[in-house]
Amino acid sequence: MSNLKLASERVWMQSHRPIMGMSTLKKIFHTAFDYKTEKYVIAENIKVGILYRVIQLCIIGYVGWVFITNKSYQAVEESIQSSVVTKVKGVVSINSSDTGFRLWGPEDYVIPPHGGPNLFITTNFIETPNQKLDICAESFKVLDGRCGDNDDCPRGEAVTAGHGIKTGRCLMKKDRNYTGTCEIHGWCPVERSQKSNVPQLGKAENFTIYIKNFIRFPNFSFSKSNVYETQDRSYLPTCTYDELVHPYCPIFRLGDIIRKTGHRFQDMAQAGGAIGILINWNCNLDTGLSQCHPKYSFIRLDLNTTVNSTTTFNFRYARYYKNATGHDYRTLYKVYGIRLDIMVHGKAGEFSIIPTLVKIGSGIALLGAGTFLCDLVLLYIMKNRDEYRKRKYESIKDDCPRNDTSTQTETQEEIHLNCNNSPV
Amino acid sequence: MSNLKLASERVWMQSHRPIMGMSTLKKIFHTAFDYKTEKYVIAENIKVGILYRVIQLCIIGYVGWVFITNKSYQAVEESIQSSVVTKVKGVVSINSSDTGFRLWGPEDYVIPPHGGPNLFITTNFIETPNQKLDICAESFKVLDGRCGDNDDCPRGEAVTAGHGIKTGRCLMKKDRNYTGTCEIHGWCPVERSQKSNVPQLGKAENFTIYIKNFIRFPNFSFSKSNVYETQDRSYLPTCTYDELVHPYCPIFRLGDIIRKTGHRFQDMAQAGGAIGILINWNCNLDTGLSQCHPKYSFIRLDLNTTVNSTTTFNFRYARYYKNATGHDYRTLYKVYGIRLDIMVHGKAGEFSIIPTLVKIGSGIALLGAGTFLCDLVLLYIMKNRDEYRKRKYESIKDDCPRNDTSTQTETQEEIHLNCNNSPV
Amino acid sequence: MSNLKLASERVWMQSHRPIMGMSTLKKIFHTAFDYKTEKYVIAENIKVGILYRVIQLCIIGYVGWVFITNKSYQAVEESIQSSVVTKVKGVVSINSSDTGFRLWGPEDYVIPPHGGPNLFITTNFIETPNQKLDICAESFKVLDGRCGDNDDCPRGEAVTAGHGIKTGRCLMKKDRNYTGTCEIHGWCPVERSQKSNVPQLGKAENFTIYIKNFIRFPNFSFSKSNVYETQDRSYLPTCTYDELVHPYCPIFRLGDIIRKTGHRFQDMAQAGGAIGILINWNCNLDTGLSQCHPKYSFIRLDLNTTVNSTTTFNFRYARYYKNATGHDYRTLYKVYGIRLDIMVHGKAGEFSIIPTLVKIGSGIALLGAGTFLCDLVLLYIMKNRDEYRKRKYESIKDDCPRNDTSTQTETQEEIHLNCNNSPV
Repeated sequence: MSNLKLASERVWMQSHRPIMGMSTLKKIFHTAFDYKTEKYVIAENIKVGILYRVIQLCIIGYVGWVFITNKSYQAVEESIQSSVVTKVKGVVSINSSDTGFRLWGPEDYVIPPHGGPNLFITTNFIETPNQKLDICAESFKVLDGRCGDNDDCPRGEAVTAGHGIKTGRCLMKKDRNYTGTCEIHGWCPVERSQKSNVPQLGKAENFTIYIKNFIRFPNFSFSKSNVYETQDRSYLPTCTYDELVHPYCPIFRLGDIIRKTGHRFQDMAQAGGAIGILINWNCNLDTGLSQCHPKYSFIRLDLNTTVNSTTTFNFRYARYYKNATGHDYRTLYKVYGIRLDIMVHGKAGEFSIIPTLVKIGSGIALLGAGTFLCDLVLLYIMKNRDEYRKRKYESIKDDCPRNDTSTQTETQEEIHLNCNNSPV
Repeated sequence: MSNLKLASERVWMQSHRPIMGMSTLKKIFHTAFDYKTEKYVIAENIKVGILYRVIQLCIIGYVGWVFITNKSYQAVEESIQSSVVTKVKGVVSINSSDTGFRLWGPEDYVIPPHGGPNLFITTNFIETPNQKLDICAESFKVLDGRCGDNDDCPRGEAVTAGHGIKTGRCLMKKDRNYTGTCEIHGWCPVERSQKSNVPQLGKAENFTIYIKNFIRFPNFSFSKSNVYETQDRSYLPTCTYDELVHPYCPIFRLGDIIRKTGHRFQDMAQAGGAIGILINWNCNLDTGLSQCHPKYSFIRLDLNTTVNSTTTFNFRYARYYKNATGHDYRTLYKVYGIRLDIMVHGKAGEFSIIPTLVKIGSGIALLGAGTFLCDLVLLYIMKNRDEYRKRKYESIKDDCPRNDTSTQTETQEEIHLNCNNSPV
Repeated sequence: MSNLKLASERVWMQSHRPIMGMSTLKKIFHTAFDYKTEKYVIAENIKVGILYRVIQLCIIGYVGWVFITNKSYQAVEESIQSSVVTKVKGVVSINSSDTGFRLWGPEDYVIPPHGGPNLFITTNFIETPNQKLDICAESFKVLDGRCGDNDDCPRGEAVTAGHGIKTGRCLMKKDRNYTGTCEIHGWCPVERSQKSNVPQLGKAENFTIYIKNFIRFPNFSFSKSNVYETQDRSYLPTCTYDELVHPYCPIFRLGDIIRKTGHRFQDMAQAGGAIGILINWNCNLDTGLSQCHPKYSFIRLDLNTTVNSTTTFNFRYARYYKNATGHDYRTLYKVYGIRLDIMVHGKAGEFSIIPTLVKIGSGIALLGAGTFLCDLVLLYIMKNRDEYRKRKYESIKDDCPRNDTSTQTETQEEIHLNCNNSPV
């Protein structure tokens, strides 16, 4: 011990000489290429050793597993550029006693007609032909439409409901003694409120929808389409999408789409509803084109999640005509139907060095957490913890011990600096 | 010192024997479960100690604070699937001396009518009835529409402006001596350029818009709607959105929407404009459904950010008719109004082990930066820096010192390897 | 060596005394501010030293380079809020012997007319005027439209193709002996299948499209528009977009757009096609507004990527009329044209402390990987590997060696714990 102290003191006294003696630059250059490596204490303690290896294996295993399964080594692009073109085919005839023979083609039932990703297919409708601007009775079903003996109709614009401007008069119905409907100035006669219980375009179940989706990941300059690329010109006009048999045939039967959402077509067709057609592209560009397929899923969009209320999807449009005298008349359509929202999502991943390094760096850092844990066990729980602590930590005291005797008690290897009295 | 050297030399000479003596496999197995832990030097220097603890606390505190407030422990999904259904209600009458009584309902003023997330509500219009394909004077306001005495009208298609094909003739106006307008072949008479100063559908302020938004986070299989789910059937038809009282009533008054953007409805209604209705879903799925609410905000989209110029939103459409002889005539509408873009954004976060580990790993690594900083202070700034450096670093010299005397000066504990002369 | 052992033993026997002697709290407080720093072994091995510095430089250089070029110090927002307003200008006349003089203005050829980000510009069309609901021959080109002698026409709705309801009868054509077409009940006469080989609105090449794009990054409260903000009122009506001369003029010539996708306008105009106009905003908010410009690119969306098949974009719409007796007739338009999808993408980055710390933390951790590699070289490849290993690792044996003689062979500095016999 005294030898060590002596050597240490000699070092302290002489330590600055060689630095001053040799060129500082040379010294710096020399030490710059010394390799510094942590000094380790090996605790040949099988318990902590096994604990450490187990922790190490768990961390490496978990991080590695996550690394592989989550493809953490890939740069991911989620900002997909997508273009959707749709085309609906099918013709339906309606032969009612009211209106005679009618034909509905795509130019009528697809709204808007221009083949975009959001389209509405009419499946049921209320037609009110030959409306003229006139004075007539409001619909009985409209809020504030009914009135009683005291002629309590409001006057003016109908803000939230109603078919025209209320004149303030109450029209009594002969068959009801005490209730009537308010008179309005508007398009008369007003629309009847009752839609058909059977969807008038029920055969829309057999309509086919062609969905062409072109996607592009701009950062990776990668683009693909969901349409089967074949030289066989008869393939597309005749195929129908089937997840297993024809996954690349982009032609869907409307009835199949509804069925896949778990609903009945005829129910939806009567009151209308909204369907989401989700096209998901999950592309792994490291493994070539073959790993980039469109995956379709179909969900109903307009159901309340908790209350199972009846929903409906409808809107109105009118066709305007002029008679020989130049006066307007119109046919009003209230259409019920199926709204299709084609939503495209996707991501593409390709190996990239940056996320890889970030993930590896984090993994290495996590291994440090294992060391920390084992240190705790070794230094605070093991039987020989004090001895381990003494060996692991080497103390340098900054100030002189008060009683500097050679028989001093030490808990750790200690070096005392700044002592006026020379060490023994 | 000589004792240490001697022991060291003894070790060096005998170090290979036991390895060869015992089975290498057993040895490897044995050392595999040794626990290696870094040897630390404890500098009992209160200044560096406090500095280190302060740095450590700062890093842990900051990283922890960021970890909690930014929910870094969550996997975040931003690819929200959204479906928006809109329905506008309200009826407005116009009674002008020109056109007589007119009624505008949603089937007329909502364009397109099919209840999507992008809709236009007509608030002002210029109607040009009974246009026929004919020859007439171009509008005075159109670029290149005016001409002078020298009959300088171009011939042909009007590419960027104008209402028809210029014939090349200049029609002089009687009240203006030297200017006229070019003659065109087109739909005549041309539209007058002046819109009404008072929005003709000014009462549109009271229209209500029902906005149903259904969202879904596909990775978390979580879906929600912005509509209050109640059994009370009279709630929806009567409520109006209010941030405090009715946050789940999805019915908005058009005037309120404009007011919330900081503009006056009547100003916007006259020339038109674009409004963004932003629905933001910021869902914390760790705390259940209650932490996932729609947050509405309303911004005006079409203002230039620096120059406060007047903007306008308008477009034209026509209704076509045929007269008894089969000739086309039409009514042209130039409509001004409010375009509503309903934009849905959102993200959902749920606890996930991967981002947690990445963030923890980075945090641990950052603690190393604190150590690095304190080492710099200890080894380069502290008074006893040389002593500390000597204790921290233990030098192994690879080559023999030139003058191998027992009185050599050492800055660090040194071990010389590969010396031909035996050490003292 | 014996001195060291003795001192060590003395320490072991007396180590608990001072801890018990002083207040534990004071002790904990005292040690809490001791600074613990790893003890390093300096291997003055120039090869490993250089290797280590090279690795260190590579890691720091690469991480730093990535850090700067990828702006890893920025928080990035990709959820851009965007509003697009479009307006097409241009008038085209068609003077055919069939239909006489016709004028197509934006109100006719832009579908839908309301100035949204998805628009269709008609460039070619098949007009079928004066269709009435009647019985007539199906088009010869329709699938299942042809029939032979055996009168094999199906009856009923045409699901995927066809213009009406098949009556089941086969109409023989006089000029063809063995083939005819099936009779249908529908809008008669049916549309002729052949479109014009020269696009009837070929002059659409000169149409101009004004695209106003307003974007907003909600997290950064940053918004911008693609329109040049100038007080000069004559700038916008007269400018045309040019990447170099007028990058902030948002007015595009339709022909230029097609040309930039690498296709010929007249080819596309004849059969139709889909074009994507991508506006990319890559905003670096750290360097002010000047670093946030819209970047336009134009791609054709509807080409198959491998098979170079001819594509087409068309749909149908009808204008309905009533004759004096109240019967419907219509003009059917099958329109071919150019669909424009204006897609806005963008991201904004701004300095943020969180990603910075995560990246720095990972970088520090990666430096540890360099140390690990150099340790492998030093301890397993270098000539003096055993000596290095002996110096780097300090062994603490947990159990007593079997033959505890003073001449025992040691591979590493060893301390034996738990020995019943007192060490020498």
